[in-house]
Amino acid sequence: MEKIKCDVLIIGGGPAGGVAAVTAKMNHPNKEILVIREHEVQLVPCAIPYIFGETLGCSEKDVASCGMATDMGISTLIGAIKDVDIENKIAYSALNAISFEKLIFATGSQPFVHESLKHAMILDGVFTVPKNKTLIDLMKAYSDDKSEVVVVGSGFIGVEIALEFASKGKNVTVIGGSKHILQTAFDSEISQEAEDIMLAHGVKYIGKDRVIEIVDKNDDNIVNAVKLQSGLIIDTEVVILATGYQSNTGLALKAGVSLGHYGGIWVDEYMRTENHDIFAVGDCSARRDFITKEPSKVMLASTSAAEGRVAGSSLYDIKYMKGFSGTIAIFSTMIGERAFSSAGVTEDQAKIAGIDVVVGTFTGMNRHPATIPGAQKQQVKLIAMRHGGQIIGGQVVGGVETGEMINLLGFIIESHFDIYRVMSMQVATQPMLTAAPTNYPVVMAAIMATKQIEK
Amino acid sequence: MEKIKCDVLIIGGGPAGGVAAVTAKMNHPNKEILVIREHEVQLVPCAIPYIFGETLGCSEKDVASCGMATDMGISTLIGAIKDVDIENKIAYSALNAISFEKLIFATGSQPFVHESLKHAMILDGVFTVPKNKTLIDLMKAYSDDKSEVVVVGSGFIGVEIALEFASKGKNVTVIGGSKHILQTAFDSEISQEAEDIMLAHGVKYIGKDRVIEIVDKNDDNIVNAVKLQSGLIIDTEVVILATGYQSNTGLALKAGVSLGHYGGIWVDEYMRTENHDIFAVGDCSARRDFITKEPSKVMLASTSAAEGRVAGSSLYDIKYMKGFSGTIAIFSTMIGERAFSSAGVTEDQAKIAGIDVVVGTFTGMNRHPATIPGAQKQQVKLIAMRHGGQIIGGQVVGGVETGEMINLLGFIIESHFDIYRVMSMQVATQPMLTAAPTNYPVVMAAIMATKQIEK
Repeated sequence: MEKIKCDVLIIGGGPAGGVAAVTAKMNHPNKEILVIREHEVQLVPCAIPYIFGETLGCSEKDVASCGMATDMGISTLIGAIKDVDIENKIAYSALNAISFEKLIFATGSQPFVHESLKHAMILDGVFTVPKNKTLIDLMKAYSDDKSEVVVVGSGFIGVEIALEFASKGKNVTVIGGSKHILQTAFDSEISQEAEDIMLAHGVKYIGKDRVIEIVDKNDDNIVNAVKLQSGLIIDTEVVILATGYQSNTGLALKAGVSLGHYGGIWVDEYMRTENHDIFAVGDCSARRDFITKEPSKVMLASTSAAEGRVAGSSLYDIKYMKGFSGTIAIFSTMIGERAFSSAGVTEDQAKIAGIDVVVGTFTGMNRHPATIPGAQKQQVKLIAMRHGGQIIGGQVVGGVETGEMINLLGFIIESHFDIYRVMSMQVATQPMLTAAPTNYPVVMAAIMATKQIEK
Repeated sequence: MEKIKCDVLIIGGGPAGGVAAVTAKMNHPNKEILVIREHEVQLVPCAIPYIFGETLGCSEKDVASCGMATDMGISTLIGAIKDVDIENKIAYSALNAISFEKLIFATGSQPFVHESLKHAMILDGVFTVPKNKTLIDLMKAYSDDKSEVVVVGSGFIGVEIALEFASKGKNVTVIGGSKHILQTAFDSEISQEAEDIMLAHGVKYIGKDRVIEIVDKNDDNIVNAVKLQSGLIIDTEVVILATGYQSNTGLALKAGVSLGHYGGIWVDEYMRTENHDIFAVGDCSARRDFITKEPSKVMLASTSAAEGRVAGSSLYDIKYMKGFSGTIAIFSTMIGERAFSSAGVTEDQAKIAGIDVVVGTFTGMNRHPATIPGAQKQQVKLIAMRHGGQIIGGQVVGGVETGEMINLLGFIIESHFDIYRVMSMQVATQPMLTAAPTNYPVVMAAIMATKQIEK
């Protein structure tokens, strides 16, 4: 067994591990930073759905670049850590014993499959959506000449994959537990709008239902159909289980590191475990919601990157105050020609969490005047505390600019700003790029929210 | 002379006056709000350039809607106020004597023409860019069949009009005083990039020069050429003077209202003049720069709308704290397929104002991975105080999402946030909509700025 010595060992090279490594090297150029990861070639996780349709069309177009890390002098080892001896600060792979000063778990997440469906994973034609090029290539090769697809799960990955399959002319049905698609991120009126566009793109949705059996009629180890709780049976050649992800914590648990809620590794604000030489970042770490303070299951590469940055700046000393405490669920996606985005809590989630909220909505156009070619409808919904008006959630639907508007709303939420503060904000408006100055929708939605408070 | 009585009289119905009226009515539904304006039909000011090219193609497509004001029960009168008797609270038009409790000047601005060129305004083929449909229609009718156009002024209106004329196949030359175009909003490396794209779209730029004479060779009252300080003579059929705007303050001055710097009407934070029953909003009001605290010549419909909102909420009592003190210059525009935007001060302006700054820049792609169809280069430049890192300026170049990214930067500037705060911000990233989570350019530029502080 070869002995290797490094200063900072990072287990996992996804967005969290990669950013942690780069940040650690920036802050400590003289420290030896070693990233160990399992796969030579890594996919950009959020773009995996686009491999299956016309957008990317192959996994080779979705390969993550590691150029920056290599240029900076960060070492990379391909392999799997089997055990970590925290007391003696040594991590073991099959071939190496790696000693370290600081360790960062960035072991990510893997597809979650409900216990009742796990046995069906052995059937040909049944797939999850792992962050693994080999498996994604197999899934693509298998599904390319099939025409009937069932996607189980109506979250972002499920909906994005369904739309890509539909773009190839396949007959696609999405099955989800909630009334409309994407309901963890959107209130039902907006989810319904997304669903209508998805339907117009040829993807059917069966909501308030769930798959109770994945059927192999001919007993030939090839999937034929899914059976739903409602009794419906849907014939299909391919089943994609897009039913969420779960933290990879086996290694940390074996090493005696404590877990937090939902099985993620417990960390403090600076991504430190109880042992301040041991960190965890990304999907393997336990998260709390920024607003509700409840455990959060949200897994986002952008949040992971932010956490990697915090860990990489807090290894030997804490260089910067972390700007946030808790995860803001902040999402965006394209459905057809429309972009949907959400930050913070939805109106429904606020009610479930027992938060007394008001809502302000505004619908206008994303260009001005509305005669500008390509102008689209633009909707903003703000959710604010009834007492004091602090903004705790927002949803935007519009053109591609929506992807950055939600980052404005995210920043407003993260900064604890209220609707009164937003009402007089100065913005840039331009005919070809934004709504009208007189009707900038974030400002207008804030004004509408005040009307709900001040009766 | 007919007597009219109202509670709030607003002189001018542009973005500032219109928003002031709507806000006043929202806050005081029982007050009689009267807007008096000179033109029956009003143009959306920022889209006037797009009337001249392929984008809109006619002024009818650039007409501002007054639907909301009418629906709310706001009265409108077409006419011109000639005199205001502030002591007795009566405004006089040719036909009416209008008594009021509160008065808002929203008299806007008109094209500025240098003294030395004013006499040439009588020539056929010489135009300014007023916010007046009749005059814009005349200019369009005259220029439609001409092929040689000179645009004097390299600000946003000049550049946008030049590009629209070029889209119709005209031969267009822009003449400006600075080395590159748009230099009041961008540092020279970014201005140069904008200029290169403008050139690729067929518009020539002559910088560091100025028009000293508008030439009528044949003495037939038709323009033939412009003569530049450098000695260059450019033959042309049409001359557009896009050399800025000046506040319309004649009426206020005659009424004895004090002016501030640059001739605008002096107002406090709540848009009140020295007399708290008399307000001024929009381009007719005097503005200070948010960062430098120097008088500001920036005239933007978006700032005017924000001011209208503040005035409309501060008429009888101050309902909301104003969120900003001073004007953030916040601009965006499209040049070809690229969007350019700027907020706060540029690096050059900071240096001229004697502010000790550092700069962080980052260039990536606006989609991820870069293989996503339509992905473009995306650049962010942040200007921050060397001591403490407060962000005081930002420039973004990229796709159409740029128009909303600058609003995020504007909000960061307005909120006095620093680069350290931005480094761990949570954002939404999505392949079809944004940069990669690991390289979100606003965060990366903030990190680059820290490297300039922490040597």
